[in-house]
Amino acid sequence: MQDIEVRFSEKPSLKDPIFIEGLPGVGNVGKLAAEHLIDQLKAVKFVDIVSKYFPPQVIVKDDGLVRLVSNEMYYVQRSDKENDLVFLVGDYQGVTPEGQYMLSDRVLNIVKELGVTKIFTLGGYGIGKMVDKPRVLGAATDLELIREMKELGVVFSKGEPGSGIVGASGLLLGLGLIYGMQSVCLMGETSGYFVDPRAAEVVLEVLVRKLDVQIDYEALRHKAQQIDQITARLKDMETQQGPEGIGERREDLGYIG
Amino acid sequence: MQDIEVRFSEKPSLKDPIFIEGLPGVGNVGKLAAEHLIDQLKAVKFVDIVSKYFPPQVIVKDDGLVRLVSNEMYYVQRSDKENDLVFLVGDYQGVTPEGQYMLSDRVLNIVKELGVTKIFTLGGYGIGKMVDKPRVLGAATDLELIREMKELGVVFSKGEPGSGIVGASGLLLGLGLIYGMQSVCLMGETSGYFVDPRAAEVVLEVLVRKLDVQIDYEALRHKAQQIDQITARLKDMETQQGPEGIGERREDLGYIG
Amino acid sequence: MQDIEVRFSEKPSLKDPIFIEGLPGVGNVGKLAAEHLIDQLKAVKFVDIVSKYFPPQVIVKDDGLVRLVSNEMYYVQRSDKENDLVFLVGDYQGVTPEGQYMLSDRVLNIVKELGVTKIFTLGGYGIGKMVDKPRVLGAATDLELIREMKELGVVFSKGEPGSGIVGASGLLLGLGLIYGMQSVCLMGETSGYFVDPRAAEVVLEVLVRKLDVQIDYEALRHKAQQIDQITARLKDMETQQGPEGIGERREDLGYIG
Amino acid sequence: MQDIEVRFSEKPSLKDPIFIEGLPGVGNVGKLAAEHLIDQLKAVKFVDIVSKYFPPQVIVKDDGLVRLVSNEMYYVQRSDKENDLVFLVGDYQGVTPEGQYMLSDRVLNIVKELGVTKIFTLGGYGIGKMVDKPRVLGAATDLELIREMKELGVVFSKGEPGSGIVGASGLLLGLGLIYGMQSVCLMGETSGYFVDPRAAEVVLEVLVRKLDVQIDYEALRHKAQQIDQITARLKDMETQQGPEGIGERREDLGYIG
Repeated sequence: MQDIEVRFSEKPSLKDPIFIEGLPGVGNVGKLAAEHLIDQLKAVKFVDIVSKYFPPQVIVKDDGLVRLVSNEMYYVQRSDKENDLVFLVGDYQGVTPEGQYMLSDRVLNIVKELGVTKIFTLGGYGIGKMVDKPRVLGAATDLELIREMKELGVVFSKGEPGSGIVGASGLLLGLGLIYGMQSVCLMGETSGYFVDPRAAEVVLEVLVRKLDVQIDYEALRHKAQQIDQITARLKDMETQQGPEGIGERREDLGYIG
Repeated sequence: MQDIEVRFSEKPSLKDPIFIEGLPGVGNVGKLAAEHLIDQLKAVKFVDIVSKYFPPQVIVKDDGLVRLVSNEMYYVQRSDKENDLVFLVGDYQGVTPEGQYMLSDRVLNIVKELGVTKIFTLGGYGIGKMVDKPRVLGAATDLELIREMKELGVVFSKGEPGSGIVGASGLLLGLGLIYGMQSVCLMGETSGYFVDPRAAEVVLEVLVRKLDVQIDYEALRHKAQQIDQITARLKDMETQQGPEGIGERREDLGYIG
Repeated sequence: MQDIEVRFSEKPSLKDPIFIEGLPGVGNVGKLAAEHLIDQLKAVKFVDIVSKYFPPQVIVKDDGLVRLVSNEMYYVQRSDKENDLVFLVGDYQGVTPEGQYMLSDRVLNIVKELGVTKIFTLGGYGIGKMVDKPRVLGAATDLELIREMKELGVVFSKGEPGSGIVGASGLLLGLGLIYGMQSVCLMGETSGYFVDPRAAEVVLEVLVRKLDVQIDYEALRHKAQQIDQITARLKDMETQQGPEGIGERREDLGYIG
Repeated sequence: MQDIEVRFSEKPSLKDPIFIEGLPGVGNVGKLAAEHLIDQLKAVKFVDIVSKYFPPQVIVKDDGLVRLVSNEMYYVQRSDKENDLVFLVGDYQGVTPEGQYMLSDRVLNIVKELGVTKIFTLGGYGIGKMVDKPRVLGAATDLELIREMKELGVVFSKGEPGSGIVGASGLLLGLGLIYGMQSVCLMGETSGYFVDPRAAEVVLEVLVRKLDVQIDYEALRHKAQQIDQITARLKDMETQQGPEGIGERREDLGYIG
């Protein structure tokens, strides 16, 4: 097996496609957002990526069938719009720095060949406390894009994120520069403690205007309510019993989304 | 030396062989089960695998002789049955994700050449508490196999194992799909605290029916009794003296099996 | 992408150039010193190095633009002096031992081709307590250089640093020997707790005499005052409130310089 | 630079040479023993090994000169004996499992070409408590060697060392089998808390009889006395002041030998 195995089930011909990345990360914001968009737009899977840079693991699906942990790419053709869309989602990011670089570089190779010149990477910006009205922070590869994003309400704030952007959402921008890509990273503010569908929603609200698509947020909002119920119960339990015995419940939070 | 050195002492010609993996893991369930079957069926060793992906270590045998840590393959020819058998056992799994992928991929290469099309991987499913009647959980590469396994009492339970299957028992299934293999992972429920011959026995009870072999469980049961005696003594000591001074005894448990 | 990508924006012709390294490390002494010298001498950037050996990360600049973490090289041509100058600075050192070796070896290749035969590496020598009058410790590749450095006040002290020199500041000397380079490591004493512009200044005081340049220390001293103010406030807070609630302030110290 | 750089300053012609390894490890027993033998026999250095598998570090010598961390090989020609001798000593072992395998394999390549067929690896066997009369434990590649070693007082004890032999002292035996080498590992019992010249002495007492050499133990015994004095002072300090403030003294112990 090669270090990174890319299998195409189809080689679609795409019209000036925009590439959208949403891999797991802080609050799983990017993954929730990208997967929701894939669902809403009925995007079609056409690439499977498996790699020694991922954890050595299979996922067991509800029916008992297994599949290797992987990244997957989807596309949407839009006859009535200027740009088709390509998505990257998956179970994991690369587990080592080398893996991160090699995987992002490979993905850029793939999307370059598909004709992509514009990238949106989606992620969470963990601030360590609960957020009432999450902002969408941005970072980008050129000033024109920053101006466009500001008009859509994206916040470009000096010193945020202070430590830069780690992982695929950052590398695709940074390495993308070498490939001549114009890219934006959209980061929804989140506590970072739980998966955060609400942060995913605010990120999507920006993105859909840019992509000119209509989606409904029902499924994301339902997930957000589930999280709220669990956190509320956790708070009750802490009040009544002290913090013991909560671990179990808290774990539930990891599964939603 | 190559990254993975495979040395054949013999290249057996095998009849539609079934491949069975039992490397160290949770409760050493898979290793105990596979080694017991090798003993009972008087399987013949024919492959030694050493690799830079294993720990840099030699094993010192009881007579003072050393050997590199390794994985080993065994075979059984069965003139009266449809399928011969091939086994993989060993001292360690690969120590890095890369090593895990490279080793599983190499093993699949070897068994593919031997004509294998069906795989059983054996392991433990750690549940963090003592188990009275361990179930055998399963995961597989196709629905037909799942149906067959269910008939033998294997439990396919939504969300178990929730985190997927990590290591060789999972990768051989996942990568095996690329090689066109039909595979099942059988996992014996175990606390995960000690080596667990009883979990190995329930796994074997399923497997022997599928392989159509007769074995006795004497040696495994003897090991289980030894574990029971030590855990009973540990409980006594804890009751009488508090938990101190138990570390030593607890270590004994690591050596059995 | 290659393991180490070196991009030249210019291939300057340099006169017997001296190479000066100042990457991040203990107290960021080397980085502060080298960057200050680059500013003062208006050195020109001509090389960008990105690599899978760096963290998988982009830096977000104040204007919201991103760039990959990188190392950078600068040069200064000096018509009135015998030696031109070449600098190496950057965001990170290699994250693995392998990365450290590969990156230092590559840099030596580059500077060898530029005609470099003499190297100064700059760093901090952490002593775990506040220092009133930081010494500059030295280590070098030949006795003649040690003699010269001693005349400039550099201390060569048996058993200091006892554990050797770890990272690029050491490797460039050690690997440099293979390339026939004459090299000195200058280490400013520092507590190692904070970034330390004062230690950077004492290192520079030695180096500028050797390089025969005039610089002013205004900017470094300003940074040192900022650090002093913050540490003073920290001390006050500890006296008044005990050590809690100080973490936040302490973090500020990481950002200066 | 290559992954492992081997530089020969000389290619000696050796008569049926025996190879002796003493790299850093538990109690630095092997290193102390091998270096003492090199001193006593006035062995000549002929190989330097530097590698990306070692820590990225230079050693600063007492005169302020630096050198890369390395492994070194020495030889002794003995006109009056059947076997010449080859030694391997150094600052570090490989830092990763891969590095350990690659380095041991490379060393075996070198000594194979020198005509070596017999190997002694020297190490410590850490037992976690002070030892009055350290035994020398053994492990070997064939029964004839075990018999010979037993006659010299070496203990081959079932289950000791229970966890096998980790690092170069083990790998050279295990990989050596592939090269057709006959090898013994001699392990001096040691607490494992301090460097242990006394354990090195008992190991050497066995080895010198096998190699038929005369050495004096003066220098080793002097080091052992220094250790004793420091440990005695430590005990005093603990009695008088409690365990605080001892850290500093305890560190001294790391430097001797």
